[in-house]
Amino acid sequence: MVENPARLLTPKMSENVKNVGILGIEIHFPNQYVDQNELEEFDQVSKGKYTIGLGQLKMGFCSDREDINSICLTAVQKLMEKMNLGYERIGRLEVGTETIIDKSKSVKSVLMQLFKSSGNTDVEGVDTTNACYGGTSALLNAVSWVQSHTWDGRLALVVAGDIAVYASGNARPTGGAGAIAMLVGPNAPIVFDKVRATHMAHVYDFYKPDLSSEYPYVDGKLSIECYLSALDKCYQLYCAKEAKLGHKVSLDHFDYFCFHSPFCKLVQKSFARLYLNDFFQQEEDSSNYSDLHKFRDLKLEDTYFNRELEQIVMTSSKPLFLSKTQTTLTLSTLIGNMYTSSLYGGLISLLVSKDATSLLGKRIGMFSYGSGLASTMFSLQVSNEIEAVEPLVHGIKDVAHRLDSRKCVAPAEFSAVLKSKEETHHLAPYQPTGPIDTLDPGVYYLVDIDSMYRRSYARRPIDGLTNGSK
Amino acid sequence: MVENPARLLTPKMSENVKNVGILGIEIHFPNQYVDQNELEEFDQVSKGKYTIGLGQLKMGFCSDREDINSICLTAVQKLMEKMNLGYERIGRLEVGTETIIDKSKSVKSVLMQLFKSSGNTDVEGVDTTNACYGGTSALLNAVSWVQSHTWDGRLALVVAGDIAVYASGNARPTGGAGAIAMLVGPNAPIVFDKVRATHMAHVYDFYKPDLSSEYPYVDGKLSIECYLSALDKCYQLYCAKEAKLGHKVSLDHFDYFCFHSPFCKLVQKSFARLYLNDFFQQEEDSSNYSDLHKFRDLKLEDTYFNRELEQIVMTSSKPLFLSKTQTTLTLSTLIGNMYTSSLYGGLISLLVSKDATSLLGKRIGMFSYGSGLASTMFSLQVSNEIEAVEPLVHGIKDVAHRLDSRKCVAPAEFSAVLKSKEETHHLAPYQPTGPIDTLDPGVYYLVDIDSMYRRSYARRPIDGLTNGSK
Repeated sequence: MVENPARLLTPKMSENVKNVGILGIEIHFPNQYVDQNELEEFDQVSKGKYTIGLGQLKMGFCSDREDINSICLTAVQKLMEKMNLGYERIGRLEVGTETIIDKSKSVKSVLMQLFKSSGNTDVEGVDTTNACYGGTSALLNAVSWVQSHTWDGRLALVVAGDIAVYASGNARPTGGAGAIAMLVGPNAPIVFDKVRATHMAHVYDFYKPDLSSEYPYVDGKLSIECYLSALDKCYQLYCAKEAKLGHKVSLDHFDYFCFHSPFCKLVQKSFARLYLNDFFQQEEDSSNYSDLHKFRDLKLEDTYFNRELEQIVMTSSKPLFLSKTQTTLTLSTLIGNMYTSSLYGGLISLLVSKDATSLLGKRIGMFSYGSGLASTMFSLQVSNEIEAVEPLVHGIKDVAHRLDSRKCVAPAEFSAVLKSKEETHHLAPYQPTGPIDTLDPGVYYLVDIDSMYRRSYARRPIDGLTNGSK
Repeated sequence: MVENPARLLTPKMSENVKNVGILGIEIHFPNQYVDQNELEEFDQVSKGKYTIGLGQLKMGFCSDREDINSICLTAVQKLMEKMNLGYERIGRLEVGTETIIDKSKSVKSVLMQLFKSSGNTDVEGVDTTNACYGGTSALLNAVSWVQSHTWDGRLALVVAGDIAVYASGNARPTGGAGAIAMLVGPNAPIVFDKVRATHMAHVYDFYKPDLSSEYPYVDGKLSIECYLSALDKCYQLYCAKEAKLGHKVSLDHFDYFCFHSPFCKLVQKSFARLYLNDFFQQEEDSSNYSDLHKFRDLKLEDTYFNRELEQIVMTSSKPLFLSKTQTTLTLSTLIGNMYTSSLYGGLISLLVSKDATSLLGKRIGMFSYGSGLASTMFSLQVSNEIEAVEPLVHGIKDVAHRLDSRKCVAPAEFSAVLKSKEETHHLAPYQPTGPIDTLDPGVYYLVDIDSMYRRSYARRPIDGLTNGSK
């Protein structure tokens, strides 16, 4: 991804730290999926319920050979190899996840195995959790650390990973799995803007209070209302903060906009929602938004489930949606909800779909949402330096090929895997039964859980020749 | 605690941010305890096993009326009231805990109820977890945030809270419970030094893989070895980093030293361990440490369980231990292990035992350890300004009275409470049975868990007259 690690050498004085952001990014996702068309048939629901209603085409899922530790190990190690970077260069590593398999021991502590040969154990950060927001919290913490007075010139790793599974029923097609690792430091090709806007509140929209189950409790309608309401609040606050700096913000401010994506249809509705916010922020006699003028007297917070308004706004905003957000949904459509990594899957989707030159100087809006709830809107700006942006974009292009070469698994088999995990995910000792030779080269997998619940992992050889899966 | 909130008004430019640290601190702990002498009899163990062997005198515990959410609600609200501070002044709140009652929804999100009347929902930070280290991670993240480029002049809240319970047996007397809230910002009476040293590794010394149980898995001997080894590594790294700045560090560098305290005896051993490190760092012909010269050829890492050496070092270092650390153990001795809040209970113990004047300009070493493992050594410096230090110290002095006015509960009753929690802690719906009128004024308590696991809380009146417990 980066041809020369020396380029990442940075000044040690915090006052000289500039353009902190994302230096590199890598994703690991399962190399098997279930087709949502087939799942509709299998579940005996109306045609198009998942594929059109939710906007989901494929859903990645893991066998019992991959767990939250293993997918994070894979993502981090692959990123470091791509960046050609030694672990002694890392001063911080924080993990965001809601896939909790131990109430005390962090995923971060498991990842310290990767640092062993470097001898570097001076690595701050542990795990951070609030539903799908944990990755964003880890990322913002990493940015603050690089900008802090104690920063020592080393780089930060952030991992957002989850395995999202639901009990059979309405929510099952909104699962997914993946882990995204990001390298954070100064002089980055993708830089954090200063302004960010947060909205946090106490609600029970989606939560996991049954600790013995992998499945969440979900109040679907409440969760959508909370998501859209948090989006409104964050956007309004982002605009107000920018206004204080003399910037009038509307959707025009952003070249692209990534959203946390529980399912793709909600993202299209969310984009429409920002468009609606822009309408309500306009002067009375604006000639834009002519379709919406009859709704002027409504209160924004009363419109979450106004179908007539929603249809009109979706139609009006569609051209903008297609240019600014559609291209960020590739991974969400083809893998599903990766929870904490979903938003950053949006960023990767964008990087995969564009060439580096067309991204130079572009501003990307980011909306992170985690039920419970925690949400933040922030923005990133792509550098104008092609020599900085090109390696980052080039380094993630293989995602398209990896998506295409996955194995399609029949819904009955998918369902059997989930059923088996329901019965075994809490057992010790436990010997995973999933095949190893179908895992991709360089993927970490669970070897064993011993009688004391201690998990051990191994890695598939990197050399493709010794790998039986392709 | 602070007579005038206006004193906390701060410059908004990060380059002007100086002396970031702890502006205020508050603790909540249960107002009931079991006596460790009585517990020795009840458990039919040898006299002194808990009281002398572990160094523990009393152990606080909660009824089913208090859970991790409620103890954190109590600590935060009491701190804000003492500081006479409105919630609109807070821009960040992060919780460190390993008392997980939901795998997704953060304690932080529950605490947002406290912000409701202020209208402030723009509050970054969620929960952070790695055994007893989560509070330190939250605290270091808060410090970085205040020092970051995006800091907007508001203050940060950090909460470290846990309810530590063990299955009946050897580990049970090492339980405890408490929550500590800290206010973080610039121009603080207790300031973070720049140098800190971290040691992280992958081990299974203490962990909680059985998600359906409140109890951990513990390999006691391994955990002590991991703790002492992490202490060695952090201290050596701290010294090496200070040496690069031209400072030769030994125990003389610190006026006081606080340790994470699983039990008090381990802290005394830990202090001796630092003394032993100083010996090994000395020149060969030093006239100090004459008792230790015969051990010069040992390797430090081979000495964790060398009883002869341990006894000699404990004796040699005792005068220093008494002056620098003994006074930090009050809460640990009288409440027990509060997990993430244990280390900060050490800081409070010190503040309670000294008058403000005697603390001016003093340096406090801090060693944070969380199994799994994550550990950091850092140091704090007390300001030289009496008008800054006096309110902080004065504000926490009531802890001594609160410790004295707790109710002593017989071991049989304590044991019955834990047995009942084993059977009910995962139930929904659930109606707590613990008495409300014995809780202290201003304490939050669990009212109800409904059939969807949604928890609701209420608060005891602040007016002492309406409280039946005293």
